[in-house]
Amino acid sequence: MKKHNFSAGPAILPSSVLKEAAKACTNYDGSGLSLLEMSHRGPEFTAIIEEANALLREIMELPSNYHVMWLTGGASSQFFMVPMNLLNPNETAVYTDTGTWANRAIKEAKHFGQVEVLASSEADNYTHIPKKYKIPSNAKYLHLTSNNTIFGTQLHKFPKSSVPIVCDMSSDFLSRPVDVEPFGLIYAGAQKNLGPAGTTVVIVREDMIGTVQRTLPTMLDYRTFIKENSLYNTPPVFPIYVSMLTLRWIKKAGGLKAIQRRNRTKANIIYNEIDANPLFRGTVAAEDRSLMNICFVMEKGFEHLEKEFLAETEKHGMIGLKGHRSVGGFRASAYNALEKKSATALAELMQDFAKRMG
Amino acid sequence: MKKHNFSAGPAILPSSVLKEAAKACTNYDGSGLSLLEMSHRGPEFTAIIEEANALLREIMELPSNYHVMWLTGGASSQFFMVPMNLLNPNETAVYTDTGTWANRAIKEAKHFGQVEVLASSEADNYTHIPKKYKIPSNAKYLHLTSNNTIFGTQLHKFPKSSVPIVCDMSSDFLSRPVDVEPFGLIYAGAQKNLGPAGTTVVIVREDMIGTVQRTLPTMLDYRTFIKENSLYNTPPVFPIYVSMLTLRWIKKAGGLKAIQRRNRTKANIIYNEIDANPLFRGTVAAEDRSLMNICFVMEKGFEHLEKEFLAETEKHGMIGLKGHRSVGGFRASAYNALEKKSATALAELMQDFAKRMG
Repeated sequence: MKKHNFSAGPAILPSSVLKEAAKACTNYDGSGLSLLEMSHRGPEFTAIIEEANALLREIMELPSNYHVMWLTGGASSQFFMVPMNLLNPNETAVYTDTGTWANRAIKEAKHFGQVEVLASSEADNYTHIPKKYKIPSNAKYLHLTSNNTIFGTQLHKFPKSSVPIVCDMSSDFLSRPVDVEPFGLIYAGAQKNLGPAGTTVVIVREDMIGTVQRTLPTMLDYRTFIKENSLYNTPPVFPIYVSMLTLRWIKKAGGLKAIQRRNRTKANIIYNEIDANPLFRGTVAAEDRSLMNICFVMEKGFEHLEKEFLAETEKHGMIGLKGHRSVGGFRASAYNALEKKSATALAELMQDFAKRMG
Repeated sequence: MKKHNFSAGPAILPSSVLKEAAKACTNYDGSGLSLLEMSHRGPEFTAIIEEANALLREIMELPSNYHVMWLTGGASSQFFMVPMNLLNPNETAVYTDTGTWANRAIKEAKHFGQVEVLASSEADNYTHIPKKYKIPSNAKYLHLTSNNTIFGTQLHKFPKSSVPIVCDMSSDFLSRPVDVEPFGLIYAGAQKNLGPAGTTVVIVREDMIGTVQRTLPTMLDYRTFIKENSLYNTPPVFPIYVSMLTLRWIKKAGGLKAIQRRNRTKANIIYNEIDANPLFRGTVAAEDRSLMNICFVMEKGFEHLEKEFLAETEKHGMIGLKGHRSVGGFRASAYNALEKKSATALAELMQDFAKRMG
């Protein structure tokens, strides 16, 4: 039975990408060698990383003053690398607190400069995204988390900002078209919509870098990666290759507009069922509901059925639906590669379960 | 034609490992899911990283006061993470300069504390490893590079040291038994003898850490990785998995003693031919010759044949034999997974070439 993979990340990838990745492990492009044992300076990988860069630029419509870098260490490493590279000790960066990851970003930034938290929805257990705040015009940047994987909220409209926006897009990267113009820097761990765990994309606008006074270790300095085209040292070859394959898949699927339509359709199938079904309720304010991570719990009075429903999803080949411990209940992650039939299967099971429970 | 892969890194891996890795890309262990789309917190990857740790401890005979960590960023990131985690600004670390990578380690360390270079073979273009130096007993650590990939030198005996040794073992990690007792810290990028590019192993002795005063970003603090068993954030799942498969292969091959015998046999086949063949000469002092990276050039008077010989190796399916630009000529990397028949094929081609050139 083909599984329905609702995992929050590392997450589902297109099956055509996985097949191609498997082939590359034993015989890359008919070379007689595995991609895993090829030099990162050889013509094969040079072509791969160049294609990855070109596809990402094309798909995201990146202007030429934005640099693309392939790093490691996850978004968690960007929590400190961003302020380390962008913020002097006497300068202020402003953050919004929309959940666990935003919180970690705030904590790490405090080592490097002045940090002001403009707004937080912590008091409501992050069930919505705060929108009423004033952005100080002297801030170096405004840091946002576009999608909160754990709490299932998503920024459907970015705030108008007079200062550059720095955005952790890890869990909704490449899930929709985004006008990059207001962004000074965008970062994303690959392991949601882009590829397997092991690489992190950072996109930075030229004017953002080179303004800090501190000495940066070579491997923590964005300029190293820009200058050397992410090849100063050995990069994570295979994760970058699989990301390139996924970028090809996105392009073939019609680009980000088509991907967004696909994601809306899938999320609607599940949210509509949550709203119609007497046994379940969504945990997030309607206008902030994430298309990527759909959080829901048992309706009051039906909490005793939670384990039973989870067991049924597993019996039906559905993976990764247990909610994060901070929210409880269920979380259906519906990343780009999830097929519509998986969303439908979940909605139908919820419906059927409600009927049977009377 | 099956290729003979003499690449310096990313390098040859056992073909059984590559086959298993390919399988995991589409259907991991019969789960119906690709390992690339599985949660790093699920039972599958938990078992993988636990097995990787256990195998590494067993194969290297690590005492219980040594911690194993799986990081990213390559040895290049350890060049700064080591002094950042171990060295206070007023403390001194001593280094030996045995080539490009040692040099980079020295450069990064200077940002964090006092650095003294005890010895260098730079004046001789790093064709030997300096051995006559006194290790100050008040040094925090002595940093060594056990194998110099570019110049083809290797430390066959570690110096007696009253201070803990920190060693970059990237290019001869797991190629021979090493008594870890004198080592405070060992680090190695995976992409030579361990696995594909994308993960870095750091082994640290308990007493080495927690002595620096500076504030460390969470993702740069060894204690984060120790405490969370390398799972504070999403680790590079697939590179760790393939490394685990290689560790299984090493164990099955008889462990490090058997691997060392195998490596000696292969290197001898090539070095013996270099020494016997009138057209070629080795570039490294005999006692410091690396078993991993065998550097040689055309004998004086025969330099005009270099391109022709390189072209012949390629015609015979031999990959990666062009020497690094710092040395020129040829470099045959003979990592663990290289088979004896590849070493023999190269030696025979050299012999045949000499005969034909008369």
